[in-house]
Amino acid sequence: MNDSTNNSHAPTLSHVNKRGEANMVDVTEKALTSRSATAEGFIQMSAHTLSLITQGDNKKGDVFSVARIAGIQAAKKCSDLIPLCHPLMLTKVKVDFTIDEENSQVHVTSLCKLTGQTGVEMEALTAVAVACLTLFDMCKAADPLMEIHGIRVMTKEGGKSGSWQAKAQQALQDSKNKG
Amino acid sequence: MNDSTNNSHAPTLSHVNKRGEANMVDVTEKALTSRSATAEGFIQMSAHTLSLITQGDNKKGDVFSVARIAGIQAAKKCSDLIPLCHPLMLTKVKVDFTIDEENSQVHVTSLCKLTGQTGVEMEALTAVAVACLTLFDMCKAADPLMEIHGIRVMTKEGGKSGSWQAKAQQALQDSKNKG
Amino acid sequence: MNDSTNNSHAPTLSHVNKRGEANMVDVTEKALTSRSATAEGFIQMSAHTLSLITQGDNKKGDVFSVARIAGIQAAKKCSDLIPLCHPLMLTKVKVDFTIDEENSQVHVTSLCKLTGQTGVEMEALTAVAVACLTLFDMCKAADPLMEIHGIRVMTKEGGKSGSWQAKAQQALQDSKNKG
Amino acid sequence: MNDSTNNSHAPTLSHVNKRGEANMVDVTEKALTSRSATAEGFIQMSAHTLSLITQGDNKKGDVFSVARIAGIQAAKKCSDLIPLCHPLMLTKVKVDFTIDEENSQVHVTSLCKLTGQTGVEMEALTAVAVACLTLFDMCKAADPLMEIHGIRVMTKEGGKSGSWQAKAQQALQDSKNKG
Amino acid sequence: MNDSTNNSHAPTLSHVNKRGEANMVDVTEKALTSRSATAEGFIQMSAHTLSLITQGDNKKGDVFSVARIAGIQAAKKCSDLIPLCHPLMLTKVKVDFTIDEENSQVHVTSLCKLTGQTGVEMEALTAVAVACLTLFDMCKAADPLMEIHGIRVMTKEGGKSGSWQAKAQQALQDSKNKG
Amino acid sequence: MNDSTNNSHAPTLSHVNKRGEANMVDVTEKALTSRSATAEGFIQMSAHTLSLITQGDNKKGDVFSVARIAGIQAAKKCSDLIPLCHPLMLTKVKVDFTIDEENSQVHVTSLCKLTGQTGVEMEALTAVAVACLTLFDMCKAADPLMEIHGIRVMTKEGGKSGSWQAKAQQALQDSKNKG
Repeated sequence: MNDSTNNSHAPTLSHVNKRGEANMVDVTEKALTSRSATAEGFIQMSAHTLSLITQGDNKKGDVFSVARIAGIQAAKKCSDLIPLCHPLMLTKVKVDFTIDEENSQVHVTSLCKLTGQTGVEMEALTAVAVACLTLFDMCKAADPLMEIHGIRVMTKEGGKSGSWQAKAQQALQDSKNKG
Repeated sequence: MNDSTNNSHAPTLSHVNKRGEANMVDVTEKALTSRSATAEGFIQMSAHTLSLITQGDNKKGDVFSVARIAGIQAAKKCSDLIPLCHPLMLTKVKVDFTIDEENSQVHVTSLCKLTGQTGVEMEALTAVAVACLTLFDMCKAADPLMEIHGIRVMTKEGGKSGSWQAKAQQALQDSKNKG
Repeated sequence: MNDSTNNSHAPTLSHVNKRGEANMVDVTEKALTSRSATAEGFIQMSAHTLSLITQGDNKKGDVFSVARIAGIQAAKKCSDLIPLCHPLMLTKVKVDFTIDEENSQVHVTSLCKLTGQTGVEMEALTAVAVACLTLFDMCKAADPLMEIHGIRVMTKEGGKSGSWQAKAQQALQDSKNKG
Repeated sequence: MNDSTNNSHAPTLSHVNKRGEANMVDVTEKALTSRSATAEGFIQMSAHTLSLITQGDNKKGDVFSVARIAGIQAAKKCSDLIPLCHPLMLTKVKVDFTIDEENSQVHVTSLCKLTGQTGVEMEALTAVAVACLTLFDMCKAADPLMEIHGIRVMTKEGGKSGSWQAKAQQALQDSKNKG
Repeated sequence: MNDSTNNSHAPTLSHVNKRGEANMVDVTEKALTSRSATAEGFIQMSAHTLSLITQGDNKKGDVFSVARIAGIQAAKKCSDLIPLCHPLMLTKVKVDFTIDEENSQVHVTSLCKLTGQTGVEMEALTAVAVACLTLFDMCKAADPLMEIHGIRVMTKEGGKSGSWQAKAQQALQDSKNKG
Repeated sequence: MNDSTNNSHAPTLSHVNKRGEANMVDVTEKALTSRSATAEGFIQMSAHTLSLITQGDNKKGDVFSVARIAGIQAAKKCSDLIPLCHPLMLTKVKVDFTIDEENSQVHVTSLCKLTGQTGVEMEALTAVAVACLTLFDMCKAADPLMEIHGIRVMTKEGGKSGSWQAKAQQALQDSKNKG
């Protein structure tokens, strides 16, 4: 693959120190800026199971409401779940669902925002992951073979590094690896 | 795909009632039996990032320790994260990591056990998901393009339905769909 | 009112000791029995606000779903909220809503069940109270004058004291006070 | 009653979107201002039960201390209990009790303060509700027929809408309904 | 000191496996037995500070009530605080305070009980530690030089190992080391 | 001892009011300043137990990783554990371990930082206490006679009172008491 391990400018880990010990990044001196992040994920299920949660009486039922609330609540608990995350005061959490019938899956997206000293991509990822787990829980009696996949950060805004988009970044990296 | 929606024996959702409202399953009358579940998931990263957490000083460092602890703690918090899960007293949680260099990813597995009235697959899935999220957090400074995938239940033991294996079940379902 | 304070058989407080200190009741020796409790409460609002959550697009919307989930989750957190409550493993939590248009209010009811050593009326009350608070939160922009009232235990089943019904008990007490 | 449903200026719900989905209000752009809110509630009990917690050895005992602490702690947990509440950093929580012997009840009041982007009335209401539930728990062995009522917001200060008082607002609304 | 490291019968660690990885002990097969543990600790403060919390108006005030409640609540949270502790359903928690004027300190003791599969000494120790921290918090404005010390297990009852007393065990070990 | 009780300038308690009731200090008007605190504590164990966690395979094992994570997580939970502590957004938590073979103990130190309205010494103390409790848990199978001691604040920086060092303060107080 790429030879970045030989590159002296190669990125390093911020969350372990030189002795390999867990290290919570010190953000005391960082400026308070407006930040946001979006993330996505998917839960694949049988066509029958997907129909159970998208048709008839369940169409407007609680399945997605429960998963949405679980995702929002999980974003707020992020620093309790991920040991080196800083406690944050999120000013907005949004979780949405799109049905992808062609691939027999639900597409889950999230948006987190705050004015603070650290990015919120972990909060957005946590919202997506727990919303997917909740859909799994609600459908598992009908379909224990479901699979959660494609959980990743889509975009980040704000902070020192400014605007970041997974798509653009991926294209850049792909071209590097070819070059 | 399959025509199971027309099948009168088709599985239905246990977690919503006929009005589509969220429904916590009543397990009061269920017998206390010994139960266990295993789950798995993957986090894919660049070869460089994978080397950062598997070589040199970090080889025995805290990265995997932190993710293991986060996964164990998350399994214990499952009923707080997934709204319709019952509170449980897990008697064992195990989270393990295998490096899959060929596919440039970490393979995360979990095992949950208890003597109780409900299965523990959601606890096992939650352990895997949060362990993956924690690895993401610890490596994101080096590699924001990581992706979490393949989160699923591998096996379940105990309870009324006895022993269940994803592999065998998948084979069965595949043959049905072909037939 | 009644003169029960002079009655040597008058009920006393189980949750404070003779020195007036908080006392968690010791239930170690109590038998594991099947127990349940139901509770109710009301949130009164303007006719306009009530119509906002019961008509048109919101009729099947998330307002009641969110309050139901909040109530269920709160029942599970009861021992974290009420200092002298024992940790419990609820086997069932149910929260329901009925619209009482005549009195311009929502009627919230809950049911909690478990097989355990203590009653679950505090869990049922907590579910009702937090479901009411959540309805308040979701409607407060339209109607900050809402009022939550009538939170009480309706019935208890199981345990040493057997079956208990608020209505019957109230009638008994009323006749005593008259007598 | 009033005809506000026909009024184009009628208040609407901020916590659900046009599709009826749960919606956490975005407060990212709101100014940090000093805010406070007060709330109240009551727990009615038999005269005998009231005497148990207000006379003799219990007069200075732990009953009210426990309820006060429970209320303070609950205010801090508000965003964990009420799904669409934002996480906040309260700078002051106060819970007080007054004995209303005439009506055989305890009057519970709370005050919450912070410098932040959202109001704190839900925190004040949560403090009152959980303090009442805790009093219920501590007295329920003596009096299972208690009732919690009259939980409402009394005043709000700060934020865009400035000072708000339930009393004044109620009078205004009453006169409108008459007019 | 002693040469127990050369002893093939020397005790080993149950909470790490052979690879040095964190290991939650599997208690699935352990019998449910009645268990209890007591622990103690001390917080040393200036004579003036001690007098502030033991004399006059504060004598029956909230200082010890708050610390007692904090200790009881912390025991219930033990498995959330100590990563490899199992979730438990405590049936009794007791926290007491004795004033030791001679040594200018408060003596904190705790008792935890349950019918379960694991011992409860960590719960008892956590109750003592958090009660001491709460006393520290309440007195720190007057005396920031306080010190918490002597936190240890006093007795354990139940389980496979039966009755255990720190005093007797200490005497035994002391005699061994001399021998 | 000292006669400070007669001194009208003697320090008083900020966390109880004149009636002896628990009182959360109102920090609404306090300036946001950069603050930090360090704390320390010790856990004494047998030489054999100490060798188990510091030699051979465990040398780089998870024992200290688990205790470090537990300490960091506990600092973030401080306001949930200590009733009158304000919720805070810590910007840095650090927990370190030094082996003191001579005294057969582990020395635990912590550092907490934030930009906020209150000091963070309780967070630093909580991190130390829970890290010690976690070491106790992980070693208790080998050595139930361990003892946690010497938990105290070492330094505080920031806020109205500026820089504070336990050592200097202790020296000052000692000289006063002699004088």
